[in-house]
Amino acid sequence: MKKRIADGDNALLYLNPRRTYLVRIESGKSLHTHKGFVPYDSIIGKEYGTRTTSNLGVEFVALRPSLKDFIFKTQRRTQILYPKDIALIVMFSGIGPGSKVVEAGTGAGALTTALAHYVKPTGRVYSYEIREEFIKTALKNLEKASIARLVEVKNEDIMRGIAETNVDAVILDLATPWLVVPHAYSALRGSGAIVSFSPTIDQIVKTVEALRESGFVDIETIETLLRGMQVERGKTRPETLMTGHTGYITFARKSLRE
Amino acid sequence: MKKRIADGDNALLYLNPRRTYLVRIESGKSLHTHKGFVPYDSIIGKEYGTRTTSNLGVEFVALRPSLKDFIFKTQRRTQILYPKDIALIVMFSGIGPGSKVVEAGTGAGALTTALAHYVKPTGRVYSYEIREEFIKTALKNLEKASIARLVEVKNEDIMRGIAETNVDAVILDLATPWLVVPHAYSALRGSGAIVSFSPTIDQIVKTVEALRESGFVDIETIETLLRGMQVERGKTRPETLMTGHTGYITFARKSLRE
Amino acid sequence: MKKRIADGDNALLYLNPRRTYLVRIESGKSLHTHKGFVPYDSIIGKEYGTRTTSNLGVEFVALRPSLKDFIFKTQRRTQILYPKDIALIVMFSGIGPGSKVVEAGTGAGALTTALAHYVKPTGRVYSYEIREEFIKTALKNLEKASIARLVEVKNEDIMRGIAETNVDAVILDLATPWLVVPHAYSALRGSGAIVSFSPTIDQIVKTVEALRESGFVDIETIETLLRGMQVERGKTRPETLMTGHTGYITFARKSLRE
Amino acid sequence: MKKRIADGDNALLYLNPRRTYLVRIESGKSLHTHKGFVPYDSIIGKEYGTRTTSNLGVEFVALRPSLKDFIFKTQRRTQILYPKDIALIVMFSGIGPGSKVVEAGTGAGALTTALAHYVKPTGRVYSYEIREEFIKTALKNLEKASIARLVEVKNEDIMRGIAETNVDAVILDLATPWLVVPHAYSALRGSGAIVSFSPTIDQIVKTVEALRESGFVDIETIETLLRGMQVERGKTRPETLMTGHTGYITFARKSLRE
Repeated sequence: MKKRIADGDNALLYLNPRRTYLVRIESGKSLHTHKGFVPYDSIIGKEYGTRTTSNLGVEFVALRPSLKDFIFKTQRRTQILYPKDIALIVMFSGIGPGSKVVEAGTGAGALTTALAHYVKPTGRVYSYEIREEFIKTALKNLEKASIARLVEVKNEDIMRGIAETNVDAVILDLATPWLVVPHAYSALRGSGAIVSFSPTIDQIVKTVEALRESGFVDIETIETLLRGMQVERGKTRPETLMTGHTGYITFARKSLRE
Repeated sequence: MKKRIADGDNALLYLNPRRTYLVRIESGKSLHTHKGFVPYDSIIGKEYGTRTTSNLGVEFVALRPSLKDFIFKTQRRTQILYPKDIALIVMFSGIGPGSKVVEAGTGAGALTTALAHYVKPTGRVYSYEIREEFIKTALKNLEKASIARLVEVKNEDIMRGIAETNVDAVILDLATPWLVVPHAYSALRGSGAIVSFSPTIDQIVKTVEALRESGFVDIETIETLLRGMQVERGKTRPETLMTGHTGYITFARKSLRE
Repeated sequence: MKKRIADGDNALLYLNPRRTYLVRIESGKSLHTHKGFVPYDSIIGKEYGTRTTSNLGVEFVALRPSLKDFIFKTQRRTQILYPKDIALIVMFSGIGPGSKVVEAGTGAGALTTALAHYVKPTGRVYSYEIREEFIKTALKNLEKASIARLVEVKNEDIMRGIAETNVDAVILDLATPWLVVPHAYSALRGSGAIVSFSPTIDQIVKTVEALRESGFVDIETIETLLRGMQVERGKTRPETLMTGHTGYITFARKSLRE
Repeated sequence: MKKRIADGDNALLYLNPRRTYLVRIESGKSLHTHKGFVPYDSIIGKEYGTRTTSNLGVEFVALRPSLKDFIFKTQRRTQILYPKDIALIVMFSGIGPGSKVVEAGTGAGALTTALAHYVKPTGRVYSYEIREEFIKTALKNLEKASIARLVEVKNEDIMRGIAETNVDAVILDLATPWLVVPHAYSALRGSGAIVSFSPTIDQIVKTVEALRESGFVDIETIETLLRGMQVERGKTRPETLMTGHTGYITFARKSLRE
């Protein structure tokens, strides 16, 4: 993996845990912040991890952006799929390098980015999205994360069917996942996984019922709570603010009908 | 990906959510359960996902084992690293296909299995373990998951140093992670990640202090709670039993000293 | 409050946090445990809080039973109303010394005991229970907690109506609370509180709808999670075992129809 | 209990779950809100629970303030003792009508209000507070809740000792509770309860150690998480916003030294 920062690369300029800047390094330009500006020439040619200072003398660290950074920076306020949920969706879907994955909807591409990251170098993600206005944003975010070549964003309605077959996993983050369950069954290879993310109880009841009727097994629904800790000798405690709910995750695997 | 079950393959024989059997298929042999025996010849040559019945007429589904299955079946009662934690450790470490990872300790190889799965096909995991009795078990579990070729299990004490350099991530699941922090700093490439899993508050305080002193940034400690849902129309509710604590996860990234 | 333990009094013999014995002290008799027997005469005439030893030399502390002890000892395996829930039910119901409270069902009397404790000395609890087999147990438990005189246990079906009027609070722990909502409205004084405890989502949806239709305001549904801590210098951590769900608590207050 | 609203009474004017106004009713005056003004004369002489409308035609309900309302309205931004914690503190302390309780510090009187409510009509609360600026506020809040006669607010430092003896419970919400443990031991009757609320791990470790050294038994530390539910048919789900941490509650009971 390349160690030195070059003109045109991405970098995460880290000021503190609450203030990070995901930028494209361009020679002759600068990042402008409330703590002064940071000329990109001061980090070009340096190793990732290098420290630099703004014109006001404040220190920044130029980190290499990781998957987590691309996901967080992709998130929009209206989205509720957090890295904690993405991590579990990826693991429970069973995907990995080389997997063939169908996803809907694309949204701003946060989950798409994670799926593409993990199916590298030979896998492929087919991402369905009916809302045209999202597709441009998603493509831009996938470009930025350098994984656009692994993804086919399709401006099609997954409720009408899935064109792909012999798929390893179908990942759903949409309002009526239960309507997609029969299509997912057709698209999946035997033993393939379906994973659905939904904020309401009604959605999970309908989805689990559809899964049971369609020949899926190993059906499970969970939710996770993530709590940050303030760690300081003599004052350690959980953080006061916490997200109480993002959504429920439902998993299942396809069994073949007789 | 191969679709048909052959002699010598692994399969997960699924009876119900609480009863699954991770087996190696051998022609002429059978799985013996309290619900009767299942002759492997009845599934050899079939697609993964196929249904079969025991001699007592009870149905089993022959699933292809996924990462989650290998992890769950690797777990020992004394271990407390759950798939929910493994999923977050993997995502926050930023690793992916091609990554170079150092891990300690190996234990029975649950986390090692996940790390190796995600660095396929060209990455590598160096796993330190001082307890010889664990190494044999770990190697057997890695063989079973068909990822042993990606892992080098080292019967060495990581407290004495890390031989590898330019490492993408160091993952720690041991009693005194803070003692490894300086070695991790030396082993990591600039901007590389360290992730530590610990059950007690004292461990996270000492580890976070060591990280701050050693030049790491973006330090964060979290815990997650996972709760299952019983989903049934008119009776949906969270499950009564829940694991209240597995451990805290601490993340950080290496900044270069001036 | 009486400080000395007399023949006929209750005492909680405390061995360790997991082993406590709620007993009636009788001169000439003993408590028999796996740690030996404790003759009651060794504590009669002593202050509550006194230590004594069994014939095997193991120390017990003779505590005065508190409300919490009566509740815990009343609980049956099939019940899911925990002290954490009882505490919130009591507080959110707004009851206190002198309140007039209707409850259903009585069950083994755990919640009844708490309600009676807090309405002392001049309040009253009317507790409906259709299952005769529970009533005897409940009365015995109320006797033991010395609060039976404050409670009227009624072997009647609350679904058919509530005889009491001008009630301060109606507390429901039964399978179909929404069917009682109109009766509760009639029984309550203006601004009086209704509190319902239910384990499933379906129950809370139906109950909240009934409350909205019946003229209740300030409707709120919550759940609580309680986690124990293992506190020991250098090893402090949350406990591994935890109850993931007991039930949801719904509160509301009566507004008068025009 | 008085049912009609009179000049000089308190009322909680309820607009919606997020907007309630705790006011003193005065003939000839009005409540001014962003939804118009509500003349108090429109509710004087009516039953609690009555509906009225502002000059802009918006409906308000005139509820009788309950303990919960007094606590919520007493809370200041800097305080972290929530009704959920107050409910558990009250229940685990074992107090009830007639109890003699010592508390420190008073703060704005939220917990004091609850303690006084439950020891009515013959109990007494002794509340220590060294910060003079809080005492005036606390007294005002106790007056408003009509329980000031049950409380003695003492502008004294509880670290120097507790003057009261034969106390049923000592309740601590201060920065260094472990320093008060020996004084609490002296003040409590045999078998009496101590309850301490603290936000940090360090505080609970020191407090539990002090309790063990001072002759307390039945020592337990817990935390609770409260999550609200959005209840609506077809859309029911947990609320997104949640408080992740208020504090830990530690309980214990006094055993007598030999």
